[in-house]
Amino acid sequence: MWAGYRYFDYLCGVSYFFIIIMRKFISFLACIGLVAMAAGAQELSNFASGRGPKVVSPDIDGPKTTFRIKADKAESINLVGNWDNNSEGVPMEKGAEGVWEVTIDTPSPEIYTYSFVVDGVAMNDPLNVFVQRDGNRYLSMLTVPGERSENYKEAGKHGTVAHRWYHSDILGMDRRLTVYTPAGYEEGKSNYPVLYLLHGAGGDEEAWSSMGRAAQILDNLIEKGLAEPMICVMPNGNPNQMAAQTLGMPVAEFDRNDPAMRNAYVRSLCEEIVPFTEKNYRVDARPEKRAIAGLSMGGAHTIAASSLYPELFDYICPLSAAGAITPEQAKGLKDAGVKLYWQACGNTDFLWDRNMEIKKALEDAQMDNYVFFESDGGHVWSNWRYYLNNFAPLLFK
Amino acid sequence: MWAGYRYFDYLCGVSYFFIIIMRKFISFLACIGLVAMAAGAQELSNFASGRGPKVVSPDIDGPKTTFRIKADKAESINLVGNWDNNSEGVPMEKGAEGVWEVTIDTPSPEIYTYSFVVDGVAMNDPLNVFVQRDGNRYLSMLTVPGERSENYKEAGKHGTVAHRWYHSDILGMDRRLTVYTPAGYEEGKSNYPVLYLLHGAGGDEEAWSSMGRAAQILDNLIEKGLAEPMICVMPNGNPNQMAAQTLGMPVAEFDRNDPAMRNAYVRSLCEEIVPFTEKNYRVDARPEKRAIAGLSMGGAHTIAASSLYPELFDYICPLSAAGAITPEQAKGLKDAGVKLYWQACGNTDFLWDRNMEIKKALEDAQMDNYVFFESDGGHVWSNWRYYLNNFAPLLFK
Repeated sequence: MWAGYRYFDYLCGVSYFFIIIMRKFISFLACIGLVAMAAGAQELSNFASGRGPKVVSPDIDGPKTTFRIKADKAESINLVGNWDNNSEGVPMEKGAEGVWEVTIDTPSPEIYTYSFVVDGVAMNDPLNVFVQRDGNRYLSMLTVPGERSENYKEAGKHGTVAHRWYHSDILGMDRRLTVYTPAGYEEGKSNYPVLYLLHGAGGDEEAWSSMGRAAQILDNLIEKGLAEPMICVMPNGNPNQMAAQTLGMPVAEFDRNDPAMRNAYVRSLCEEIVPFTEKNYRVDARPEKRAIAGLSMGGAHTIAASSLYPELFDYICPLSAAGAITPEQAKGLKDAGVKLYWQACGNTDFLWDRNMEIKKALEDAQMDNYVFFESDGGHVWSNWRYYLNNFAPLLFK
Repeated sequence: MWAGYRYFDYLCGVSYFFIIIMRKFISFLACIGLVAMAAGAQELSNFASGRGPKVVSPDIDGPKTTFRIKADKAESINLVGNWDNNSEGVPMEKGAEGVWEVTIDTPSPEIYTYSFVVDGVAMNDPLNVFVQRDGNRYLSMLTVPGERSENYKEAGKHGTVAHRWYHSDILGMDRRLTVYTPAGYEEGKSNYPVLYLLHGAGGDEEAWSSMGRAAQILDNLIEKGLAEPMICVMPNGNPNQMAAQTLGMPVAEFDRNDPAMRNAYVRSLCEEIVPFTEKNYRVDARPEKRAIAGLSMGGAHTIAASSLYPELFDYICPLSAAGAITPEQAKGLKDAGVKLYWQACGNTDFLWDRNMEIKKALEDAQMDNYVFFESDGGHVWSNWRYYLNNFAPLLFK
């Protein structure tokens, strides 16, 4: 609770009072039992304040990484992480002062998520402040530094990430979207290209900026001169949702037999979100300055949007895509002109065969500037971050 | 994971493939054991998809609220919430299919946080997607609807919440801040008043927009015509931090003996953040259109900033404040002109006596337009949300 307090006494100029007050407050908390409550909450305050042993988790030490949790009364704790397919996880061992720990080989550089399974119940690591939300689940993060994860860290210069709302007549609601503007956007006067970046099923308008590290990747690529400064718009691709479920907004019940709702989200994207963006931001509104990319369901949206609106996007990047493209659609798109059609899929992805069909359709149509990017691995965020890091430098050039 | 998937088949136009694919994917997951991993993570997928009993938590039913958690192997589970001072919590009982539950009297309308203590280890409610971060702890939220919490819900019209960076020469770093602009700001041309809203010790630039519900409160008040449309700037008040610790940025080590660092954060606020805001947003930059408010340490910052820069802010609202004001400072501020000095404190706050001293100093100086707002309760977010909801309608009028 008192992270900022260490420097407060010196820097605020009302310092002396505050230190006294904080000491009084800590005594006060102890009196009314709130320290006991904090102790129930993993004794973070004890650990963090140095009044108990300093327990760190996760603790990366070169090739070995140790996880720890204080749990006096638990009978078994397992560590389960997505660095392997071991759904049972590995058992942790109880040591001094009720602190359980386990040491594993540090996995290769990437962002992973993990849980502790305490007497059969999965929970986050209470000592780890780094947490991701995947749909309705919160998961502790392990970031292993290295070349692969280099651009997932905070860059030196940061763009702005805004949560904003647009009105959709097509979907009949105000809807939230996330907009990244690159460092220098607000101070400048020039117009920017735009990447429309779409999430998968179960995701929402926060998926790419949280799990996808989109702002960090773009900040780093732009700072290094590897990508063009660009705006990135990350909408909510669930047409029944106004916003991420964490906002508690009502969810629409659409009539599935209503023909007016066919392709409703893709139409809202192309007929409402693109114009909204071009009206509200300094955008270079030419097709050669518009890109669309999306993962899984968002890959299907990417294929559908670019096929149904062939003049709109010159850069098209379906990632581990669901969906399909017909020969007629592929021909229409080729005729409209494509500066880059960059399709990516992991070679153990359950959608690999489907992606081979999409690839064949694009090759049969002799799509211009077509690239198929094969990675290891499956239908996972480590691939989608990796893809963004690889295709963003190719856009708008 | 598949929240958006229900409508996808109808709305996307690539529907049939996707349904087939999703079925394949679920089979695929089962094969490689990921369903088992999800099962470890509270079997959310089972519960959510209807393949097991539908378990809901928290479940508010008028005067009674029930909490539930599935835990086959646990020996004891207690519910601990901040609606009372019972740090032990209340025991939950194991029922059918390993689902533990407890029913309590629904507390009065407010936002609360709670934990499950499973065999001595505190954890969040895995069935509850509503989570708040308080410093380095994540806590499950219980929002009880009613008059008091009415403005904490999402409004009809939403402003934009942006995470942006400013450069501080005084603190020698780029620093992150949260900026709320009201609905209509981007489309309009008029200039807006600004509220600078400061967090307490242990908080950061996300505290007011998450725990404080500042965007929701301002959205609702503005929509109802109760508050002037205003910009709200929420900086990081920890001078050693570039940003919230969730970003993993380096923390500065200041030399406590360096006189150049005295009042460094308050100086950065008044000499850097205010000019940054007035340069980058459409701001009415007169003192009568500038307000400053803050809680606890942020209350001390509020008092210090308004005392050290008496010409800057005409609206001053220290909340459960630390800090102090000298007779000379109070006189200087009165002489500069104050449109509202609104001091608030809970009558069980550990800082009550300190606030009485501040009150006396302001009354002794015959501060113009001085209001002391007393509430029940202590040094808690329920009070700070309540204060914002009460003073925001008084600003800029």
